[in-house]
Amino acid sequence: MGNWRDNLRSVEPYTPGEQPKEKDIIKLNTNENPYPPAPGVMKAMQEMDTDLLRRYPDPTAGMLVDAIARRYGVGPDQVFVGVGSDDVIAMAFMSFFNSEKPIFFPDITYSFYPVWADLFRVPYETKALDENFAIRAEDYYGENGGVIFPNPNAPTSRYEDLSLIEDILQHNQDCVVIVDEAYIDFAGESALSLIDRYENLLVVQTFSKSRSMAGMRIGYAIGSPELIKAMSDVKYSFNSYTMNQTSLCMGKAAIEDEDYFQDCIRRIRATRDRSKEEFAKLGFSFIEPGANFIFVTHPRLEARKLFQQLRENHIYVRYFDKPRISEYLRVTIGTDEEMDALFAFLHRIINES
Amino acid sequence: MGNWRDNLRSVEPYTPGEQPKEKDIIKLNTNENPYPPAPGVMKAMQEMDTDLLRRYPDPTAGMLVDAIARRYGVGPDQVFVGVGSDDVIAMAFMSFFNSEKPIFFPDITYSFYPVWADLFRVPYETKALDENFAIRAEDYYGENGGVIFPNPNAPTSRYEDLSLIEDILQHNQDCVVIVDEAYIDFAGESALSLIDRYENLLVVQTFSKSRSMAGMRIGYAIGSPELIKAMSDVKYSFNSYTMNQTSLCMGKAAIEDEDYFQDCIRRIRATRDRSKEEFAKLGFSFIEPGANFIFVTHPRLEARKLFQQLRENHIYVRYFDKPRISEYLRVTIGTDEEMDALFAFLHRIINES
Repeated sequence: MGNWRDNLRSVEPYTPGEQPKEKDIIKLNTNENPYPPAPGVMKAMQEMDTDLLRRYPDPTAGMLVDAIARRYGVGPDQVFVGVGSDDVIAMAFMSFFNSEKPIFFPDITYSFYPVWADLFRVPYETKALDENFAIRAEDYYGENGGVIFPNPNAPTSRYEDLSLIEDILQHNQDCVVIVDEAYIDFAGESALSLIDRYENLLVVQTFSKSRSMAGMRIGYAIGSPELIKAMSDVKYSFNSYTMNQTSLCMGKAAIEDEDYFQDCIRRIRATRDRSKEEFAKLGFSFIEPGANFIFVTHPRLEARKLFQQLRENHIYVRYFDKPRISEYLRVTIGTDEEMDALFAFLHRIINES
Repeated sequence: MGNWRDNLRSVEPYTPGEQPKEKDIIKLNTNENPYPPAPGVMKAMQEMDTDLLRRYPDPTAGMLVDAIARRYGVGPDQVFVGVGSDDVIAMAFMSFFNSEKPIFFPDITYSFYPVWADLFRVPYETKALDENFAIRAEDYYGENGGVIFPNPNAPTSRYEDLSLIEDILQHNQDCVVIVDEAYIDFAGESALSLIDRYENLLVVQTFSKSRSMAGMRIGYAIGSPELIKAMSDVKYSFNSYTMNQTSLCMGKAAIEDEDYFQDCIRRIRATRDRSKEEFAKLGFSFIEPGANFIFVTHPRLEARKLFQQLRENHIYVRYFDKPRISEYLRVTIGTDEEMDALFAFLHRIINES
């Protein structure tokens, strides 16, 4: 009686970044975009034919795939879409990381990589970032079952030049290399410029950050047709319909408004520049940020305590109680007004301390 | 060079039911609802605050979970939602089927069960339906790692009384029993009436059929708080945000319009009654249908050939080239007009043959 409990999967409990329900908070904790999606997104939503909803969506997500392919100048057979980049990367783990050799990723990085590795029983080894939180290419030269890292990295915000990525690719022709570019639009050049030369390179991006659509769950991967076909085959084999009709229509509208997109990026980068100055003035130090967040530490303020103080004052940032980074806070770049409120508060704390 | 290909996951290619792009076809092949979603769904879409989209959705899907809980008179801690019932059932396989003993399901059933079993390395045994395509409760008495079956079953449309389900539950107190009720609203009483007495019973339903929202990908499971917590823990451990904001808003609106829902069901059942008469008059035989489709066979017409003839005439139904059912066609109940067109065509074929 009741022995069914013996067969429950045991998992590490995970707590997603807080999504507080109160209004009037300053939310700088989950790297969301402070600006709304492109105006065309609202229009697409209001004009959508709801009769479409009674039918299954196109399993190939054709309208969205085509729009992404046009935007990046690649073929539709080079684009895979999923329910956020988490879904896309999980599918890539399943599709590509089936060697008995360990996959490699940095010790400080996106926290879901080890989770997916465990889930799909993929062995892995982490490679320590250097003292400036930089990836060392030579750490990735050894035999492995695959390589994955974000660029810019999370939660450090550090962007690595393409020369480093090409160095890693040069030394890894026998495995799939995934560059997770969730934040690339706020940084420098994308590794997309390398996909024609490296058929084993998969670049993953998302609508959640630079396109202001975290709420819609849209991510995508771009790579050689062979990589994309392998992912699609895996996906179709066990779950045909994942992208709902609204994601297809609204995603298409978002990616087609290039001017709005560029303007949004410009504004966030300008606020980031200002924020760097303010943080520096207040005595914080930080890695040069490539993403829409900045990873800061202060010589006198204890990060955990500051995190709590901010929270009590309705300003939410992110704190990671992990080795090497437990004295840092990750602060999303919000609007100028939101950042002003943050700096006013920090000013007060520092003057009082 | 290029050895990364050695580590691609090898999968059985799967072809989802056709979603033809032509207009002016009669689409009776994927069990979609012929009527649009409730009017409130369109309203919810048009009135949604697009600024919400820049934020991550509530990972607990609270507004949708609460609406489902209210509709079924259960606690919010008894409801799990996912991206269609495929996602919900896959999550249930991962969460509950971790025994070394095989899980049991019928030989003729939803084609994804063996796929998920293989994906998550769950051993399984199929149990043959009897000559009338009925489930034999005693086949499920033996030691096993879990039980799953649809009620009504697919693609037979056969509904089993709750007495059979309770018989199976009585003999399976040490494993999780999943009743996949994708089509229950077109049939008889739901196994939901048993969840208070069987804490190991999980009932899975969907918005894709009776609520006309296949395009939105919303499924849910209802069971004891302990089962639901186990599924949520697994889900959060590797993918926090799967339900997008539009699904939450529009799903809530759909489930809150009980009158529209009941009216829709009544219309489809009435068309099903008429269709049974017409099929019988034309010499077809069929299992008494419980779902929004009917599984028919004809003594003189070859099923595969008829499927092709219908297709050439822009009428799409579903044919399965599988043992025991290769002389059957699965025909979704459409509008009266769609069914009239089907019957006029069948009349012609039969008179000519």
